[in-house]
Amino acid sequence: MEVVERARAILGPAHVLSDPTDTAPFLADWRGRYRGAALAVVRPADAAQVAAIVRLCAEIGTPLVPQGGNTGVVGGAIPDATGRSLVLSLSRLNRIRETDPVGDSLTVEAGCTLAAVQAAAEAADRLFPMSLGSEGSCQIGGTIATNAGGTAVLRYGPMRDLVLGLEVVLPDGTLWNGLRALRKDNTGYALKHLFIGAEGTLGIVTAATLKLFPRPRSVATAFLALPSLEAALRVFARLRGALGDRVTTAEILSEPQLASVLAHVPGTGRPLAAVLPWYLLVEVTDPLAGLELAERLEDLLAEGLEDGSVADAAVARSQAQAAAMWKLRHSVSEANRKSGIVVGHDTAVPVARIPDFVARATAAVAAVRPDARVVAVGHIGDGNIHLVVLLPESLRASAEPLDAVAQAISAAVHREAIALGGTISAEHGIGQGMRDALAAFKGPAEMSLMQGIKRLFDPQGLMNPGKLVAPAPD
Amino acid sequence: MEVVERARAILGPAHVLSDPTDTAPFLADWRGRYRGAALAVVRPADAAQVAAIVRLCAEIGTPLVPQGGNTGVVGGAIPDATGRSLVLSLSRLNRIRETDPVGDSLTVEAGCTLAAVQAAAEAADRLFPMSLGSEGSCQIGGTIATNAGGTAVLRYGPMRDLVLGLEVVLPDGTLWNGLRALRKDNTGYALKHLFIGAEGTLGIVTAATLKLFPRPRSVATAFLALPSLEAALRVFARLRGALGDRVTTAEILSEPQLASVLAHVPGTGRPLAAVLPWYLLVEVTDPLAGLELAERLEDLLAEGLEDGSVADAAVARSQAQAAAMWKLRHSVSEANRKSGIVVGHDTAVPVARIPDFVARATAAVAAVRPDARVVAVGHIGDGNIHLVVLLPESLRASAEPLDAVAQAISAAVHREAIALGGTISAEHGIGQGMRDALAAFKGPAEMSLMQGIKRLFDPQGLMNPGKLVAPAPD
Repeated sequence: MEVVERARAILGPAHVLSDPTDTAPFLADWRGRYRGAALAVVRPADAAQVAAIVRLCAEIGTPLVPQGGNTGVVGGAIPDATGRSLVLSLSRLNRIRETDPVGDSLTVEAGCTLAAVQAAAEAADRLFPMSLGSEGSCQIGGTIATNAGGTAVLRYGPMRDLVLGLEVVLPDGTLWNGLRALRKDNTGYALKHLFIGAEGTLGIVTAATLKLFPRPRSVATAFLALPSLEAALRVFARLRGALGDRVTTAEILSEPQLASVLAHVPGTGRPLAAVLPWYLLVEVTDPLAGLELAERLEDLLAEGLEDGSVADAAVARSQAQAAAMWKLRHSVSEANRKSGIVVGHDTAVPVARIPDFVARATAAVAAVRPDARVVAVGHIGDGNIHLVVLLPESLRASAEPLDAVAQAISAAVHREAIALGGTISAEHGIGQGMRDALAAFKGPAEMSLMQGIKRLFDPQGLMNPGKLVAPAPD
Repeated sequence: MEVVERARAILGPAHVLSDPTDTAPFLADWRGRYRGAALAVVRPADAAQVAAIVRLCAEIGTPLVPQGGNTGVVGGAIPDATGRSLVLSLSRLNRIRETDPVGDSLTVEAGCTLAAVQAAAEAADRLFPMSLGSEGSCQIGGTIATNAGGTAVLRYGPMRDLVLGLEVVLPDGTLWNGLRALRKDNTGYALKHLFIGAEGTLGIVTAATLKLFPRPRSVATAFLALPSLEAALRVFARLRGALGDRVTTAEILSEPQLASVLAHVPGTGRPLAAVLPWYLLVEVTDPLAGLELAERLEDLLAEGLEDGSVADAAVARSQAQAAAMWKLRHSVSEANRKSGIVVGHDTAVPVARIPDFVARATAAVAAVRPDARVVAVGHIGDGNIHLVVLLPESLRASAEPLDAVAQAISAAVHREAIALGGTISAEHGIGQGMRDALAAFKGPAEMSLMQGIKRLFDPQGLMNPGKLVAPAPD
């Protein structure tokens, strides 16, 4: 293929992979749900080489699929099955370009892992607050392309809120330098925000200037048992009303979710004797050292115990106790994979509608599949509850096509979220897995504007084709 | 005119103004720098009437200029001189539609004043944090269209960060309901962010769902005298490092700026005996009641006095003392108008470059006009220093055209900001006054994308024509 030969000339032969053994890890996602084919995997070293590859692809008409750490769950970084594309790995763009402790900013290349970015911030005595299960391998470019979320969104916002500036290779190969380390810039349309969350369909992010924050120097962690989701909202409102943005994390787990973790993940245990329908993991942080946050939290929880919104609560007395509470949250995916066939969801609704949503969606799932179990885990302050439906493993051997079952379940869950003013994708993105659901979710006005933007930026349709937005029907 | 007659049929004759006495207040800005003409001023009552007017204009080909409180400084809401446009006033869309204290959100119509939105939040025991000098008359739709800033951006971000969802009438008259009260929504391109800051050139915002915050229950205010801008950055870093986001406001004033306020505004006085080159007004807030924030602040300022970054400081001991400090900041515009011909600027640079920028830009202004005085006021944590150039009133009587003098001065100031990685508009927007400067500031790739977006959304070019982005040359 001409494009592969010319890519070798640009990048050197060592950085254009075409042997199937070498390319295999780039052609499937980590859960094994999406699988594709490609002419080759190209590994440029810097933004100029990315631009050269994009120009080459624009000239020849070769589709390009950018890929970061390949930790996504919606197939956004996996090429289609035609084998016509190049996969462009950003892994070699892994330099920390600049740290500015006075301006509280950090400029990094797209291929830096999230953990490397966190470490660079810490080396400057600052915090980069995004925190994800996959932080050791996901890349910052991927978190920007998908507007990633995680457990600190409540306090610091999603990736969109953490990006000051971007460097992007546009679909014609132009390198756009939008790396402005500015806190305010009111000069026209917010191009930066178009690229964030666009999943590589409008251009390829090669570097970003990120916001840094003071490091937390006082921390308190608590685990609460709650009689209901209504009670969880009441105690969350109490904490946030009194402590404001000190409430960094508020993660909710249903009792079946906790039970699944305890059953399947070694080294976990109940922090509380009480068995109740819901649990909340709360973390409170402050940049001031020496604050008695644990005491504050205990006072507030005592008020909750009095008014019945909290049934029981434990405030961690040591880092080890706090880590044990966090381990319950972090073990959710592992536990669920071990306890059945997982049909996950990423819905969000207005915070006040969470109880309604969980009740209605659980009932809707039961109506579709009486044999399904539903566990729930999520970010209560973001309205983002992941309803995880677990199907019996025996289904794999049955005549029923699993995909159709999963689709019927997801359609039911999405319907309830939409009916309550919610969204079908809060933090995972659209990729290929949610593309058709998106087209049904958005009204025609919005879909048509999105298709117009796609055509404007990428008239040849070469940038991560088939992801996020389907082409307009002719 | 057909369009005026048909607008009367849609809105009723009382809400289509064409008598020059009635329309005059809508055809010039409050500073009297921009003046235009219009067929009529239309005053729709709700989003459906806005949509009907926009459809009518799209059909006939009549340009539309949306207008909120008409408090802008760049002429963004004033029609051109051709008299071919309709001015569309949003003032009658002034309902608070919904308050959601559990979800910490508020849905309001575009014509609500900022003060009315603040009051609605307070009635729900919450804070809507945006704070501007013009808050009694500016409208929330205008603050969204211009991505307004103000004195609380440091803590809460500009308007862009405060908007959860929007309702927008698109240029073809479609009413797009994007009023999602969601904290997270990752479903495709960020259309919301395109409309924010677009100054009505892509559509007309008719309502918004806004974020609310816990009300501050502990507050401390201090006024600092500082030997240099470098020292100001050091003390700011110390405060933010220790207190984090409790530092809600950090407003810097130069000694000539303070002197101008003291000379021209009755009822003002020096909070400190010391006369030094720079002053900082700091406000620290916390949602927790009963905190000893003033003591914390005193401890930190004592450290600053010891290391020489602070020359003198006063922490307000009463609300009256705090109000007197704030009055100095709020009187800046009035004082400057009284002390000369004002050539204002709205530059921002990376925070660490502020000292460089002020030194270089002041020297550049002196090189252009030795008779100019420069005062400076701004938001130090945002990197947004307003360099205000005061020219002698005698210039009005001279043969030199004032516009040319002002342009030469602004070009020099902008050049220095750009050279330091800065922007020429941090919070005021582009409107008509900065449009040509914008085209020079942005590179061709970005201008061309912006022009493409304008064409995509508004192919007839009827939405606030001549503002923000000039049409692409044919």
